[in-house]
Amino acid sequence: MATPESESFVRAFARGLQVIEAMGQSASRQTLAEIAEAVELPRTAVRRFLLTLIDLGFVRSDGKHYWLTPRVLRLGLSYLSSLPYWRDAQPTLEELSARVKQSCALSVLDGEEIVYVQRQHAKRILLMSPSLGSRLPAHAVSMGRVLLAGLPDEDLEHYLQHATLKRLTSATIVDRARLKGEILKAREQGYAWIDGELDESICGLAVPVRDQEGETIAAINVSLTVGEFTSDSAVAQFLPTLRLAASRLRAAAG
Amino acid sequence: MATPESESFVRAFARGLQVIEAMGQSASRQTLAEIAEAVELPRTAVRRFLLTLIDLGFVRSDGKHYWLTPRVLRLGLSYLSSLPYWRDAQPTLEELSARVKQSCALSVLDGEEIVYVQRQHAKRILLMSPSLGSRLPAHAVSMGRVLLAGLPDEDLEHYLQHATLKRLTSATIVDRARLKGEILKAREQGYAWIDGELDESICGLAVPVRDQEGETIAAINVSLTVGEFTSDSAVAQFLPTLRLAASRLRAAAG
Repeated sequence: MATPESESFVRAFARGLQVIEAMGQSASRQTLAEIAEAVELPRTAVRRFLLTLIDLGFVRSDGKHYWLTPRVLRLGLSYLSSLPYWRDAQPTLEELSARVKQSCALSVLDGEEIVYVQRQHAKRILLMSPSLGSRLPAHAVSMGRVLLAGLPDEDLEHYLQHATLKRLTSATIVDRARLKGEILKAREQGYAWIDGELDESICGLAVPVRDQEGETIAAINVSLTVGEFTSDSAVAQFLPTLRLAASRLRAAAG
Repeated sequence: MATPESESFVRAFARGLQVIEAMGQSASRQTLAEIAEAVELPRTAVRRFLLTLIDLGFVRSDGKHYWLTPRVLRLGLSYLSSLPYWRDAQPTLEELSARVKQSCALSVLDGEEIVYVQRQHAKRILLMSPSLGSRLPAHAVSMGRVLLAGLPDEDLEHYLQHATLKRLTSATIVDRARLKGEILKAREQGYAWIDGELDESICGLAVPVRDQEGETIAAINVSLTVGEFTSDSAVAQFLPTLRLAASRLRAAAG
């Protein structure tokens, strides 16, 4: 049970992390006043957190401005290195992308969003080039749909009832019953094809990455330009290679 | 001034972050006992931190095992998005790598190590493929040498006196006076060439990325296979393009 003391610690710890996140919102060195405004806390409290973070090596200051140090990166990378398939993610994606000659990505589900944890570009210039940590709404992208398909029924129902289903293009499915139908179809087929629901010019084919117990732990996809492929031709051309890559990551997670 | 209360908070905050880092050390879901052993704290204390982290959405548990969630990634990415040149880093590196047809990287200095914040591979298969967050000893790599060259004199002296200069190949410079000479040469020339000091098969050419005040804030390099280039031919072929990329990042940091 939480005691009042532990509750106050939880709150303090949460606020310390909030200060780190807030300092990442701006691409310039910030003053105490700016950070305090961003986290909506009194300056005296924020100053205490900043001194703590300086003590721990996460923040530096010239007395007037404060900025994050590369040490912060270690925290975020803790997550990546805790993924059982992480060491194999980059070579697997590189090989996949080289084989299919298209851009590929690996992502995980975080609430209503997918988060990119690895991506490999086939071409030098891409209109859309999500980098590590980029987030996209799960309902409108192929990896999102297979990740949602991998949720336990109860969690999927919760998502379907509460998710903000934003219309992003004329093709975006925002009707909850229809979205559920598509997710269940992805679950049955073991892949998802999405055409222009996030951006009118992009379509994608995704498959789940499973662990040894069969639980979906990530998704990989290939991104294509609308018009180059139909659902059928994309499935015929890319599904076997995507599944091979997914099984390699599954083996790595074993 | 630190009060006893604030000191205890600093300690608690530090330990909470330590738990996150420790959970990234293992690529499998850990038990309370395993995490407690890793951070060398009593289980009761660690359990309290884990409950806090679960409350905040950074950790999940099935009652027996604990694992990090993608939310942790946001912390690390706070650092990256706080870099004033971050938005331009990826396109700049992609363009650089395409122009020179070699692997390129962008890094920052963290104590005695360089940390990769961006990299672009020219070839599909590389023997050495450092990913985001990878760390290398600054003394033995080209980017490290220009980053050290960018330190204020006082910080450079401190580094030279205290750094662990590990011999990694027969070419690694571990003599402090000689290393200082090489760093000062890099400062004067505005670039560093290193041949086989980290790994016998790799050489590299690096230049500093500066901000508007002329302060070194990062380094970019091109990695080459030993034997393909001499110092002179590498400088002739790659230095102008590297400097162009560095000036683009400098403009972005303005």
